[in-house]
Amino acid sequence: MRVLGIDCGSQRTGYGVIESDGRDHRMVAAGVIRTNAKTPFEKRLLEIAGRLRELIRVHRPESAAVEGVFHSANAKTALKLAHVRGIALLVVAEAKVELAEYSPLEVKISVVGYGRAEKFQVQTMVTSLLGLAEAIDSEDACDALAVAICHATHQATARRLASPEPV
Amino acid sequence: MRVLGIDCGSQRTGYGVIESDGRDHRMVAAGVIRTNAKTPFEKRLLEIAGRLRELIRVHRPESAAVEGVFHSANAKTALKLAHVRGIALLVVAEAKVELAEYSPLEVKISVVGYGRAEKFQVQTMVTSLLGLAEAIDSEDACDALAVAICHATHQATARRLASPEPV
Repeated sequence: MRVLGIDCGSQRTGYGVIESDGRDHRMVAAGVIRTNAKTPFEKRLLEIAGRLRELIRVHRPESAAVEGVFHSANAKTALKLAHVRGIALLVVAEAKVELAEYSPLEVKISVVGYGRAEKFQVQTMVTSLLGLAEAIDSEDACDALAVAICHATHQATARRLASPEPV
Repeated sequence: MRVLGIDCGSQRTGYGVIESDGRDHRMVAAGVIRTNAKTPFEKRLLEIAGRLRELIRVHRPESAAVEGVFHSANAKTALKLAHVRGIALLVVAEAKVELAEYSPLEVKISVVGYGRAEKFQVQTMVTSLLGLAEAIDSEDACDALAVAICHATHQATARRLASPEPV
């Protein structure tokens, strides 16, 4: 299956596309949508929507995975992020791509096997699970790949549980 | 000038379209976009975007006015509202309609002349300013009309200041 992971942020939105059977994962694309903080916010939302639509058009994912939104220490940042997240959910729904949401805890448990994993542990595991020669530089792209891997793993487990192979 | 006011909400989004020269205001349309709380959130965002796009297509406003987003007592509600607000800003930017934002204080001062006005005072003034025989029932539609009136008034003042009539 092909999964688009999105890591929404008010200034940088990470994305990662993977091809996966739930056990073996391959990276198709990954990057960061950066917008200029000096550009009016609604124009930045327009830019993010355009880039996400393009990613879906080019990579044709079957599903998209995002992290749930949680109260941040910084309420203003959380509110800006929620605007961007609204855009991401809209674009996914418009493209009729299936949407899945996971908590940061679920993503870390799925990728690292430990819910309180540090950023660098997530990065190391994402790099390893995707069989990459070099670590993904961007934390945002890495987080997007992590949520995509989490979804691919969950989906494969759900399918196996639905139709178990004979012992 | 024709102004679309939008009052974003996680369950109900009010809208109001007015035609105004900055002194006399006429209501063109007003209502509420309600979405079913049982519908997945991304589908509700899709519905809201569709309705807002239709309003802009039908009424062709020159500008759209929304209230700024503020931290609410209920962080969860504020975050959901911010998702909807992101959608509203995107739709306005997509349609190349000019966007204006006002604080609740600015809206109340503009409409009632008093920043700590109560809801019923806003409703009474909106009804009176639009010359309506009956009060607008919906609080959400009323708030949307109020922010539209606020913008029309501000715009007219700005224009008069830019090119003052001879004394």
